[in-house]
Parts: sequence; structure tokens; C-alpha cells
Amino acid sequence: MAEFLCGLDAAVTVVGGKWKPLILWALSVEPRRTGELRRELPGVSEKVLTQQLRELENDGVVHREIHQEVPPRVVYSLTAEGAQLDRALRPLGEWGEEHMDGIREARR
Amino acid sequence: MAEFLCGLDAAVTVVGGKWKPLILWALSVEPRRTGELRRELPGVSEKVLTQQLRELENDGVVHREIHQEVPPRVVYSLTAEGAQLDRALRPLGEWGEEHMDGIREARR
Repeated sequence: MAEFLCGLDAAVTVVGGKWKPLILWALSVEPRRTGELRRELPGVSEKVLTQQLRELENDGVVHREIHQEVPPRVVYSLTAEGAQLDRALRPLGEWGEEHMDGIREARR
Repeated sequence: MAEFLCGLDAAVTVVGGKWKPLILWALSVEPRRTGELRRELPGVSEKVLTQQLRELENDGVVHREIHQEVPPRVVYSLTAEGAQLDRALRPLGEWGEEHMDGIREARR
């Protein structure tokens, strides 16, 4: 069972990993199919993307809906909790936007 | 050289890793020595803590000051950018606080 030191620890456990905050951001714009997400996130492998979506779904922030068509269409969207989480990530995104050049320079 | 997809990607690169947001939070309360930080973060090894502090310092969010005493006293504090980053993490911490029980349940 996961034990958390504090709220931030719990939140970081949910959004930790290179792609998860970006997946939330993409889904906040509109619900997407896996292929659409892959195009939004250049460099992610299908295996990693599927794994991360499954974890986000298990944590209750992403909803997976299967439309019974041929072939079946799988669409991912944010749950209410996921939309809240995405909003909570916005100030962090703004900080990153502002300091991106400095961080890039520091890691050169 | 690090390439970032967006501001959030850059910010997550800086705070990614189990301990970094917690280190920022601890330093936002007051500057600390390594030993004090270790007591604040139960479970972190000295090696991992030192490595993460070095990375945060390199990214310009943590300042390391050596007081020339015997033995030398090393004190870590937040830079202005680090304090901003810590504030940007607050809504995320609040989200985690609110949803911690559900996340714990989902990961049982």
C-alpha cells in the first residue's frame, strides 16, 4: 500500500513521470484517442504511453471509454479529479515557461 | 542539451523525482543542513539526498552555503526562483491533500 508523506508527495506520485502532466494537459484541451495523444507527445513510445494512461486511469484522474465500432474506438478524457489536477499544475507550467531558458542553459 | 516540450515539461524536469518537491517544501520553512533535511524526509538515503540537492543547485533553485567553521557547516536555502517554484507547487500539494485517501485506496 502506498504511504504518502504529505499531499504533495501523493500528488507527485500521481503525476510523476515524464509524460503524465503532458497527458493531462493534452486531455484538458479535449478527449483523445491513443494515436492522437502519441502525436501530441513527440518521443513517447506506444508501450510507455499505454502504461502511463493505465496508471492515470487507476488513480482516478483519467477515464477510458470504449466505443463499440469496428475497429473499437478508445477515447481518453479527464475525470473531475483529473481536471482539478490539471488546473493545480498550471502555476507549475507558468513557472517553467518563465524559467525554461535558464534551466536549459544550466543543463547544457 | 535539454529540450523541453513546454513550460510544464521544464518544471517537471526540475522537480521530478520522489524527494525534490519535499526538499523545496522543507527549505521554504527555513534553511537547513543536510542532516536536518534527512530527518525531515524519512527514508531518503544520504547519497540520493546529496545528488538531488546538487541537481537543484545546478538548476538554480537551491543555494548551498558553506560556513567556515570546524567542522564546516553546509546550509541549503531556496533561491528567489526556488521560492517561486515552491509557491507554484502549492496548489498541487492541496490537490494531493484532498485526494490522498482515494489515491491510497486505488493503489492498495
